[in-house]
This record gives sequence, structure tokens and C-alpha cells, in this order.
Amino acid sequence: MSESSRLSTLIQALCCLPGIGKKSAQRITYHLLQRDRAGAKYLSTALDEAMDNIGSCRRCRNFSEADLCDLCLSHKRDKSLLCIVESPADVYAMEEAGFNGRYFVLMGHLSPLDGIGPRELGLDKLEEYLADGDLSELILATNSTMEGEATAHFINDIVQKYQIRVTRIAHGVPLGGELEYIDSNTLSHALAGRREIIK
Amino acid sequence: MSESSRLSTLIQALCCLPGIGKKSAQRITYHLLQRDRAGAKYLSTALDEAMDNIGSCRRCRNFSEADLCDLCLSHKRDKSLLCIVESPADVYAMEEAGFNGRYFVLMGHLSPLDGIGPRELGLDKLEEYLADGDLSELILATNSTMEGEATAHFINDIVQKYQIRVTRIAHGVPLGGELEYIDSNTLSHALAGRREIIK
Repeated sequence: MSESSRLSTLIQALCCLPGIGKKSAQRITYHLLQRDRAGAKYLSTALDEAMDNIGSCRRCRNFSEADLCDLCLSHKRDKSLLCIVESPADVYAMEEAGFNGRYFVLMGHLSPLDGIGPRELGLDKLEEYLADGDLSELILATNSTMEGEATAHFINDIVQKYQIRVTRIAHGVPLGGELEYIDSNTLSHALAGRREIIK
Repeated sequence: MSESSRLSTLIQALCCLPGIGKKSAQRITYHLLQRDRAGAKYLSTALDEAMDNIGSCRRCRNFSEADLCDLCLSHKRDKSLLCIVESPADVYAMEEAGFNGRYFVLMGHLSPLDGIGPRELGLDKLEEYLADGDLSELILATNSTMEGEATAHFINDIVQKYQIRVTRIAHGVPLGGELEYIDSNTLSHALAGRREIIK
């Protein structure tokens, strides 16, 4: 073959990115070599720095460079609200939606077959968090999938012994959604969760 | 925002990859941090090594780590055939198709508006190559786009002064293609280029 060894090493290494197959990796490699060597060097450094320096926040388990993350340290957040999410991407989504409490990131969901149990999700840490006592409400914002629902149920059971209000984010029709195209389970949730219109 | 600075640096750096936007970059970053730190470190090294060590072959302008690439050095290739292509990806495609001559890689096509003229495509180098005299046929395998055709024409004009046969790869119906779905220009080329069936 005509490919130099470092070229094929790079193509193969790019395949570790989710959604990038051999053909895309090749296209990316040629693009970087031909048009954006500076960008590639920058990416190399960014990858290296990130992997070496980003760990987990001791308290909320979100990615953090320091022992405690910015959100846990911030004095502007509402300490009485704790939102439980599955992943750092969900934290980002909640922030975009304007949530102003704190988070606890499970980094996954219960999945006994894959060996992911309560300990892997850091639920012992969560109990420490709850025992601290500042909280008034725990919001379960795991995904609305089978696994997410099971995880939410499980956490709800654990939390019953603390005097804390536990809520689950609402299920229903997404904004802009048309009833015609929404699955019947979602619609029955939307119906059951209907509310009085405030005049 | 909740993102640490190295995290956002990495997300931004990933956006230099073609076809990767902010959302994909974020997803990739979270994936690497959560599940494949080793892969990310490997990718970082591969990028760095490739950008520092891969240059151009002095003769055919294809990517190469050495002064002359493997294809130019190989004694197994047919030295009388020279195939002109636009990019290293095209070399790869021609190799897959079983071509056994040598290549000359333009690294682009004529595009006066973008400042890409004969010099940028290394056509002076091509003339040196031709003057060497071993060649019996020059195959123009630039893309079948407007720019590729123009480039092929231009090179054909240059090459006229050497006693070399110049050919252009055939246009026609791709294998497995159905006439119903093929554009009329391609079909008229296929018709004009029809051949006697060998019995």
C-alpha cells in the first residue's frame, strides 16, 4: 500500500472517535495534512491536556480539573435543590434550560448485566450528600428510558429515609410537538400530568 | 458555565475536524473522558507524530515520510505509466482499483479565483518528470468535475510537446448503475464511448 506508517497509524487512531469509521478517518487525515496542520497540533495538545488533567468532582462526580467543580463551589447556586442526572452532557442540557441548583452526576444508569450497580453510580456518595442536610428537594432527571426510569425508582427508594421531597421531571409533549406524531405512551403521560390553566 | 476550561478547549479543538460541529465535539469529548482515555492519548500522539513527520514526496508530491515515497522507490511498478490525480485519497482509490503504474498528485485542481495556478499544482515538477523520458503514457485521472476537466485539458496542452500518449479515464455508467437514475450527461458520454463486445 501507498500509505506511510504514521499515516495509517493516525487513520486507525481516529477510529476511536465515536461515529468515525475508516473512510471518515481517512478523509479527516488527508484534510488535516493538506489544509490544517496547525489545527491538528492544537487538537493533539488539547487531547493530551484534557486526558491528563480532567478528573471527577469529589462531590457531584461531574468532570472537573479541581477537587471540587465550579458548580459545587459557586455561592450563587440554590443549595436546597439537587438534580440527579446520568451524564455530564445532561448537566450541560439542564444548565441551558436555566436550572440553578446543584447536580449529582451518576455517570451512567443501573445496568446489572454490565456490572453497573449502586456503587458504580456513586450512590454511597449521594447518601453522604443527603446526610449533610441542606437539601429540601431532590429532582430525579435521569433519562426517560427503561434504564433511566429504573434508576430513578431505585434512588427514590433509597432516599425515602431522609426527610426530603423527591420529584421526577415531567413527561409530556415536547414544545412544538404535534399530537399526531407523538407515541401513545408519551401522550398518556401528558394527559395524566395535565394541569389547571392559570388565568 | 459548568465546563472546565480544558474541557471547552478540547471541544473547540475537535471542531477543526471536517464534519464535526459543536454538538458532536461535545459528545466525542464526553465519550473519550468517560470511556476511552487511552484511545485519546494514542490519538494525541498519532496526530502529533503525523503532523511533524509527514511531508511530500519530492517526485510525485504524495504524502511521504521520506524524501521519496514507497511508490516512487518501488521496482515493481510499471515506470512507463504515469497517472495524474488530484489528491492522495485518489491515489488510494486507484490502488484499490489495481493500477500498477506511478502517480503524480496535484494536491488540488486549477482554481484561479483561489490563487491556485499551474505552479501551485507543481506542473513545473511534472514537466521535469516528463523530460526524464521513461514514460510511454500519461493518464489524466482528475475528477470528472468542471475543475477537474479544466485541469485535465490544461495538462493535456502542456504535454503535447513531449512524445507521450495522453489518455483520460472513461466516463460512463458506474457498475450496478441503473440507466433510469443516471444523469443525461453521463449517459451521453457512455453512449459516445461505446465499444464493440469482444466475442
